[in-house]
Amino acid sequence: MTTTDRRIPVGVLGPTGYTGLELLEILARHPGMRTAYLASARTPAPRIDAEFPRLLNRLGPGVSAECGPIDHDAIAAVCRLVFLCLPHEAAMEHTPALLARGVKVVDLSAAYRLRDPAVYERAYGHHHTDVANLERAVYGLTELAREQVRGATLVANPGCYPTAAALALVPLVKAGLIRPDSIIVNANSGVSGAGRAPKPNLHFPEANENFSTYNIGVHRHQPEIAQSLGRWGGAGAAGMTREPLFVPHLLPVERGILETIYAEPARTGLESAAVQACLREAYAGEPFVVVRDEAPTLRDVQRTNAVHLCAKVAHGRVVVVAAEDNLVKGASGQAVQNANLMLGLEETAGLR
Amino acid sequence: MTTTDRRIPVGVLGPTGYTGLELLEILARHPGMRTAYLASARTPAPRIDAEFPRLLNRLGPGVSAECGPIDHDAIAAVCRLVFLCLPHEAAMEHTPALLARGVKVVDLSAAYRLRDPAVYERAYGHHHTDVANLERAVYGLTELAREQVRGATLVANPGCYPTAAALALVPLVKAGLIRPDSIIVNANSGVSGAGRAPKPNLHFPEANENFSTYNIGVHRHQPEIAQSLGRWGGAGAAGMTREPLFVPHLLPVERGILETIYAEPARTGLESAAVQACLREAYAGEPFVVVRDEAPTLRDVQRTNAVHLCAKVAHGRVVVVAAEDNLVKGASGQAVQNANLMLGLEETAGLR
Amino acid sequence: MTTTDRRIPVGVLGPTGYTGLELLEILARHPGMRTAYLASARTPAPRIDAEFPRLLNRLGPGVSAECGPIDHDAIAAVCRLVFLCLPHEAAMEHTPALLARGVKVVDLSAAYRLRDPAVYERAYGHHHTDVANLERAVYGLTELAREQVRGATLVANPGCYPTAAALALVPLVKAGLIRPDSIIVNANSGVSGAGRAPKPNLHFPEANENFSTYNIGVHRHQPEIAQSLGRWGGAGAAGMTREPLFVPHLLPVERGILETIYAEPARTGLESAAVQACLREAYAGEPFVVVRDEAPTLRDVQRTNAVHLCAKVAHGRVVVVAAEDNLVKGASGQAVQNANLMLGLEETAGLR
Amino acid sequence: MTTTDRRIPVGVLGPTGYTGLELLEILARHPGMRTAYLASARTPAPRIDAEFPRLLNRLGPGVSAECGPIDHDAIAAVCRLVFLCLPHEAAMEHTPALLARGVKVVDLSAAYRLRDPAVYERAYGHHHTDVANLERAVYGLTELAREQVRGATLVANPGCYPTAAALALVPLVKAGLIRPDSIIVNANSGVSGAGRAPKPNLHFPEANENFSTYNIGVHRHQPEIAQSLGRWGGAGAAGMTREPLFVPHLLPVERGILETIYAEPARTGLESAAVQACLREAYAGEPFVVVRDEAPTLRDVQRTNAVHLCAKVAHGRVVVVAAEDNLVKGASGQAVQNANLMLGLEETAGLR
Repeated sequence: MTTTDRRIPVGVLGPTGYTGLELLEILARHPGMRTAYLASARTPAPRIDAEFPRLLNRLGPGVSAECGPIDHDAIAAVCRLVFLCLPHEAAMEHTPALLARGVKVVDLSAAYRLRDPAVYERAYGHHHTDVANLERAVYGLTELAREQVRGATLVANPGCYPTAAALALVPLVKAGLIRPDSIIVNANSGVSGAGRAPKPNLHFPEANENFSTYNIGVHRHQPEIAQSLGRWGGAGAAGMTREPLFVPHLLPVERGILETIYAEPARTGLESAAVQACLREAYAGEPFVVVRDEAPTLRDVQRTNAVHLCAKVAHGRVVVVAAEDNLVKGASGQAVQNANLMLGLEETAGLR
Repeated sequence: MTTTDRRIPVGVLGPTGYTGLELLEILARHPGMRTAYLASARTPAPRIDAEFPRLLNRLGPGVSAECGPIDHDAIAAVCRLVFLCLPHEAAMEHTPALLARGVKVVDLSAAYRLRDPAVYERAYGHHHTDVANLERAVYGLTELAREQVRGATLVANPGCYPTAAALALVPLVKAGLIRPDSIIVNANSGVSGAGRAPKPNLHFPEANENFSTYNIGVHRHQPEIAQSLGRWGGAGAAGMTREPLFVPHLLPVERGILETIYAEPARTGLESAAVQACLREAYAGEPFVVVRDEAPTLRDVQRTNAVHLCAKVAHGRVVVVAAEDNLVKGASGQAVQNANLMLGLEETAGLR
Repeated sequence: MTTTDRRIPVGVLGPTGYTGLELLEILARHPGMRTAYLASARTPAPRIDAEFPRLLNRLGPGVSAECGPIDHDAIAAVCRLVFLCLPHEAAMEHTPALLARGVKVVDLSAAYRLRDPAVYERAYGHHHTDVANLERAVYGLTELAREQVRGATLVANPGCYPTAAALALVPLVKAGLIRPDSIIVNANSGVSGAGRAPKPNLHFPEANENFSTYNIGVHRHQPEIAQSLGRWGGAGAAGMTREPLFVPHLLPVERGILETIYAEPARTGLESAAVQACLREAYAGEPFVVVRDEAPTLRDVQRTNAVHLCAKVAHGRVVVVAAEDNLVKGASGQAVQNANLMLGLEETAGLR
Repeated sequence: MTTTDRRIPVGVLGPTGYTGLELLEILARHPGMRTAYLASARTPAPRIDAEFPRLLNRLGPGVSAECGPIDHDAIAAVCRLVFLCLPHEAAMEHTPALLARGVKVVDLSAAYRLRDPAVYERAYGHHHTDVANLERAVYGLTELAREQVRGATLVANPGCYPTAAALALVPLVKAGLIRPDSIIVNANSGVSGAGRAPKPNLHFPEANENFSTYNIGVHRHQPEIAQSLGRWGGAGAAGMTREPLFVPHLLPVERGILETIYAEPARTGLESAAVQACLREAYAGEPFVVVRDEAPTLRDVQRTNAVHLCAKVAHGRVVVVAAEDNLVKGASGQAVQNANLMLGLEETAGLR
């Protein structure tokens, strides 16, 4: 805006979905970034405050509500970093061009999350069209990949469910406290996780006062969770002869994820205190991970970038309860957390 | 089903919407009717218990879940009466053919509600294609038209909002207690009133935790309310130089209508007791209208065929609170109430 | 009612809670029973339609809305059977006196559910004061105990969670398809299951848009589930070296229970079809148990007496999804189902 | 914080209610204030992050979660301004002592809102015990009282409903566009407006899926609305022979207020454009008031400090729809907006 505005200019591609809206609300309060370009694939490009009237007069100083086209040169001319809130295929299409123009990318789609393109193709049902950048991409589960994120030009922002699951499980697997082949992630998400497009099962009179499972054991986030356990679980992940079983459920709430995770202890006599101590040690000093004595609720984390964890041993099983906001730590908040690191800003900037 | 089944066979045309579902749940418990034909315009015709799994094993003895085509002869062969849960245009298309075959019709669409085809066309935006049957149709606000309904072959089942509004207002207008040109109907409805087709504003993350007005002063139920006041308001309606102002709101609930109705008293010194006495007298002995000392809530009437009313004078205005279930008394319940009369059954059968 | 009213007179003790309300709504439509006595411990005894205005004018023919005292003689003078919707301790207090007067009892509390008084006392934290009747009591999981219920004078109506869990698990344990020591019951219930007394965590602004676990591994329904597996699981339950782990969650909905149940298969190569076939065979012809190919949702069963089941094998584990309405099949509906059998009525009467 | 922390130290008295929580969330992000003292009347004083686990690790740099006692000297030693989130009576008790110690006060209770102590006593049912400060208090409807707020030491923060109502009505009354004796404020609020104490009608299973009116024409906010029209309505308010009729409703949502306001036009031929122009002119340049062409919804303003307005003329009546968040612009947000002015900070600081 003015010559004294030292905030770093960033862009948002695909701002008309829920992750886009959440990102714009975070950026409006961010002391170190400003939204310099909004790009939409729609024709005509919408005003974002017509799309989301709650943004009227609230985009922050000097930020225009007008969306422009997805024009790589125009974007590169004004942005040092862009957030991609696009479909997977579009993300693979635009990322190479943006990187080539020196623009850093935080991709909120799944395009660069799974290291193995064959696994990607099985999970997402289409070919990976930018395998070249898969190796370059840093999987941005910030607490576990902080240093790589700092140096990254392309960050694959983790999926919502896998963020909570990996943060809950990696320390326990790595410490050898649980049997990796016994893991069941019983997950529950608010409806915003399913996106903004109306669908019969998300019609208010259907989803309201309702609750259901979906994609039992075949959800695309299952291999992503397995990948994180393999990558960060150390020797403890060696026995993962079966992938964790991932069973998502749809909650009649706008937002939030709560996962109740079950596993067999790797040794007899394991007690709650030891499991909690393992988590506390793993996340000591972390600004956004809170290990608590009581199981968290959705409300404790909604509209925050926090993940709350609580583990117990009950009737011989380890039970971990993990809660996060699917649109914040599970998407746009973690994206900003990653962008902060990529741009040399304070990691927590704009996220408190 | 068996030779001893004396229940009267009826049909439901268009059972795949919310009024259809409600009707089938009522009919499943009805001691005097059985669902003999389900007709859908879809190809292929669905099984109704696949469409609504809550109907699995619950349609009642001898009732098939298979839908057939809208075949007038086939319907007339097995049904003495049909409920039309079809779009307005389709209702006008099929009604003449069914009546011609001796089948009685309760039409839940708006096709035959407005006596004047010009008013209909202004409100609904298309021509009325069956003006011939408009005169024949009885507007089935049961409490006000009981005798005509008893003798009717075609009943226009009233709109959801107008049912509550007319029951609340007609006695007060007729008794000359309120000024008919001063009426404001501030109405609130659950989302099922908007139908089963997904729409952006009815997507769960949009409608949930939300509340909004719509169609201020231009809703199609406004002329229907005015028509009832004109028809039954007697001399008291003479001064209706302006139609009642009707302002609907969308509540984040599945079902129920609550209307807070405002009017200027027609004389000074009018007190709450006189207004309540007028309502109590009007509805003495009515099985489905309850006049109460406290304002009703949605919960008091949900999933019942009741309308609860409470009137007061506050700061010089008359305020009437009316509550009903939009799918029961506002649609399928009143449809069955009317069908009971048309078929010579007890008016309350199946509706307690 | 008139002298020709042949419906059997029954009583409801403690009608001012949610199970009482549900029972009265069912009884109002029941062709074979009528509510002859409402007994409340409150002083002064309330009118039930003041307590629940939705019951105004809806209690059924000849039923009084006035509650009387819990007077055993007065109750026995007019009732052949009573439903107890009382606290556990009160149920143990009144049951012997009622049985002694020849009144059959369906107890909706937990007083007579656990056969072993020591288990009861550990779970409920108080002494069992009527051990004499524990042996006499029939645990009324109707589908598994139909013949005993028919002859019973005292039925312990099962807990809401255990009803769904036992119906889902008993056939699989009995057939030796799953390892009984590996069972995890991840359960979710609407808030009505927690009763009608306001509590901080059930205050609308706290429970709304929220989701949480509670009582992980220490809920009182865990031993009840274990008891049913032991009783009906046959040889398959022999290896139950650990009780099933039961983890309940609180859903932000009024009613309904959905359980996602996990177990290890007892043999390699077990497939979904075999698990489903086991359930289908077990419940063939049952009016209230539906085995489906797709996982049920809460909406499919709300306000019905049905339990919907669907089992799969996914990533090497057996997953069963079970849904029911906690107030109907999980309480008052099953109570009426049991009472129907105890009184020689059709099992499904009043429950369709 | 460190010695370089230049943020102004403020206190929050009574932080354990919903307005307290909202205030702490705003202050945590505020660039110019820091929470230096939390005072609770409870014994023992709670940790605020035990009371609200969502505040764990989120109170902002250097802010302690410990509450201290309501000790005027201790508070005055560290705070330049305090926010009172206390009951009305407690606010009257502590305000004089705090002012005497040079501490500025923003009172979120109703204690100092009504200029006339007789009106206060009628509305609130207890004596006003600090009439001396009533004259000194500035009624902090910021947009209408900006300059007085800037110089105030005691600000009475307006009620939630009256904020939206007065902002909607004052310009229209002042411009003589509507008849002041004809105003009806049909208001709807989320449940958080009723406070954090559990009550039967706010128990989740009661308030959920429900909707109701309350206090028709006798709500305590009615005289507050009338006072604002009298104070700022100019000559247009002269004909206010009747107070506006205020009818609140309880919405099944956590937060937000939507008011649909009705009035007779003061002259014939008034059109929507003229009414909208009046509002636009009145609020040109205002950061928190948005005049829109479409009626706002709750979602448009939830968790923001904005008030959205839209007016039309429909069937001869003026209809204004006003929306705000009851906890932000209707309470804690406006409190911070006022405190910003009182402390010489930018009015919008912390509120975007």
